[in-house]
Amino acid sequence: MAEVHGRRRDALRRLLDDRGLDALLVTNLLNVRYLTGFTGSNAALLVTRDNAVFCTDGRYETSAQTQVPDLERVIERDCALALAARAVGRTGFESDHVTVDGLQDLTEAATAELRKAPGLTAELRIVKDETEIEALRMACAAADRALAALIEHGGFRPGRTEREVARALDDGMRDQGADGPAFATIVAAGEHSAIPHHEPTDAQLKPGDLVKMDFGALVDGYHSDMTRVVVLGHPADWQTEIHALVAASQAAGRKALTPGATVAEVDDAARSVIAAAGRSEQFMHGLGHGVGLEIHEAPALSRAGTGTLAAGMAVTVEPGVYVPGQGGVRIEDTLIVREGAPELLTLTTKELVVV
Amino acid sequence: MAEVHGRRRDALRRLLDDRGLDALLVTNLLNVRYLTGFTGSNAALLVTRDNAVFCTDGRYETSAQTQVPDLERVIERDCALALAARAVGRTGFESDHVTVDGLQDLTEAATAELRKAPGLTAELRIVKDETEIEALRMACAAADRALAALIEHGGFRPGRTEREVARALDDGMRDQGADGPAFATIVAAGEHSAIPHHEPTDAQLKPGDLVKMDFGALVDGYHSDMTRVVVLGHPADWQTEIHALVAASQAAGRKALTPGATVAEVDDAARSVIAAAGRSEQFMHGLGHGVGLEIHEAPALSRAGTGTLAAGMAVTVEPGVYVPGQGGVRIEDTLIVREGAPELLTLTTKELVVV
Repeated sequence: MAEVHGRRRDALRRLLDDRGLDALLVTNLLNVRYLTGFTGSNAALLVTRDNAVFCTDGRYETSAQTQVPDLERVIERDCALALAARAVGRTGFESDHVTVDGLQDLTEAATAELRKAPGLTAELRIVKDETEIEALRMACAAADRALAALIEHGGFRPGRTEREVARALDDGMRDQGADGPAFATIVAAGEHSAIPHHEPTDAQLKPGDLVKMDFGALVDGYHSDMTRVVVLGHPADWQTEIHALVAASQAAGRKALTPGATVAEVDDAARSVIAAAGRSEQFMHGLGHGVGLEIHEAPALSRAGTGTLAAGMAVTVEPGVYVPGQGGVRIEDTLIVREGAPELLTLTTKELVVV
Repeated sequence: MAEVHGRRRDALRRLLDDRGLDALLVTNLLNVRYLTGFTGSNAALLVTRDNAVFCTDGRYETSAQTQVPDLERVIERDCALALAARAVGRTGFESDHVTVDGLQDLTEAATAELRKAPGLTAELRIVKDETEIEALRMACAAADRALAALIEHGGFRPGRTEREVARALDDGMRDQGADGPAFATIVAAGEHSAIPHHEPTDAQLKPGDLVKMDFGALVDGYHSDMTRVVVLGHPADWQTEIHALVAASQAAGRKALTPGATVAEVDDAARSVIAAAGRSEQFMHGLGHGVGLEIHEAPALSRAGTGTLAAGMAVTVEPGVYVPGQGGVRIEDTLIVREGAPELLTLTTKELVVV
C-alpha cells in the first residue's frame, strides 16, 4: 500500500507544478488518509516537491509507525501548526477546508508564504484508482448481501418496525465484513416513503406498504450507496406505476453515464423521463453524487452542476418520485464511469420485489 | 422541545448583545441542531435579535416541518448563501467553522457586513442543560449495560478476536437503545493495550491478556465515553501495579474536578500521581475532554489548556500508562462538574475485573 500512496503523492506533485506551488499543507483528514493511508482522527501532511512530512499526536504514534512507515513523522498535538512551521517557498493551503480563524493561526506559525490552493487532492480523488474501486466493490457487495439475507429470512414481515429493519440491515452489512453502515440507514414504510430522507421510527410495517431503503456499507473508508423498494404483498397500481417510472428514469440516467458527458446532461436524461410523466415537482433533489472516502463528494450530478464525467469516477444515480401523503420510490445504484457502459457495483435487482 | 431550543436561542441573543451583533449566521450543523433540534445533514440558521430563520434543502422539507415547527423555513440547497442574503446590520459568522473559500462566497451573497464571531454557540454548549445531561446519562447507561452484558455472557473468552469483542460492545449498546457507538470502539488485547488508540484487529484474546476497551454510546446526538480494562485470568504483578497507579491518578483527577478549578490544575492533579511513580513519559496524552454533541469538545483538560471549570460541564477523566511492548491501562469516566463532588455518569466498576 505504501506504493499506492506514493503514486498518489507523485500525482499531487504534478498538480503543484501546474499551480506553481512548492508545497501543499494538507489538513483535511480524508486527504491525509488518501495520500498516506493514516486512519486516525488527528493528522496533517506537508507534501513538498521531493519529500513529505507527516504529523499526528502521541495517541497515534504507534499506529503511525505501521500505517505511515515510509514518511518522516512529527508527533505534535496541533499538526497543522507544526507543519506550517516547515512550509517552504510558495506553500499552498486547503482554503476549502481551513477555517477563517485557522488561517490566522497558520499564517502566524508559517515560515513561508501561504497561498490558497483549494481542491488539489479532490481533483485526484474524483477519479478512483483500482485500490479504491476494489474497496467500493466490497462495500457495495456487503450491502447487496445484507439486503438479500434480510429478504431471505423474512425480515419484512408485518409488525416489524422501520427501526428494526434498519438495524437488521446494519447488522447484516457488518456480518458481511463491512466496518459499519456508510451513513444513517433510511427505512421508510408506507406514507413515510414519500419523505426523501426519512429517519426510521417505531412505525410498524403493514400489508400493502412500500418500504424504501437507502443504505450502504463502509469498507476500508469507502462508502457504498444503494436505494431499493420492496412491497408487502400485492402491489397497488399506483405503486407499480411510480416504480416503473422511476426505474425508466434511473435506466436513462445510467445510460447517459459516459466519459465526456456533462453532469447536467446526465441529470437531464433521467429527469426528463419523470418530467414527461408530469411529475417533475415530485423529484425535488439532484440525480446523484460522487462516492468514495466521503458519502457525498464530487461530482454532483444535478441541473446546476458543472463539469464533465471521466472514466474511473464513482457516482450514484438515484432519481425518485415522492407523492406526499401516499408514498414514494427511489432507485439508486453506485457505479463506476467507464468507456462504453458504466460498471454497476450494486447488483441487487431493481425490480419491485414483493416480500 | 421547541421551548428548550427557544431558550437556547434566547441565551445566544444575550451573547449577540454582549458582542454588539445584530444577528448570527449559524452554519456549523451541530450548532444548528443545538439551537433548533434539526438532525438532517444540510442546514443553516440565521438568529436575529427578535427572530430566527431556518434553512434546509428539499430532502428535509418534511422532516423540518416536524423538527423545526416554530421557525420560518427556507428551502434551498446552499443554506449558508440563502441566509447570508438575509443578513441584517452587523451579522456575525462562525469564523471557526466557515472556510476561507466559504467566506468569500458568503461575502458576495451577504446583504450586510459580516463579522467574525467564533465560538458563540460553543460558549453556550460548554455548560449542559438538563435535557442534554439526561441524554448523556442515557448514553453512559447504554455503555455500562453493554459491558455488563458482555462480561456476564462470557464475551472475553480466549480465542475471541478484538474485532468480535468490539462488535459485541457495539451491538450491546444498540440493544440498550443507543443509536450506535459514539466513535470507533477500541478493543486492545495483550501488547496492543500499550497503544493508546488501537484499532481492533483479528488478534485473539489469550489467557493473561489485559483487554482495554474505550467505547461509548450515541443517544439523541449525545456521546458517552468510557475506558475500562479486564484481565483474562489471574493478573500479573505488573498489570495490578499499573492498574492501581492509573486508578489512583484517575481518582485524583475526579477529585480535582470542581467549579473554579483551571483545566491545567485538574490535569496536574492526575498527572502528578503518575509522575511520582516515575512513569510520566508513559502518559503521553491529555487528561480528558468535554463531551456532548461532539465526542471531543470544549473544555480540553490538559497541561496546555486554558480556562476554568463550571458546574454543568460534561467532561472525561482518562489518565493512562502505556508500557511499549508489554501493555497499558487507561481508566476513563464521563462526569458532570457539580458544586461539591462531580456527578459520575459511567457507573461500571473501576476495579481490575478478572474475566
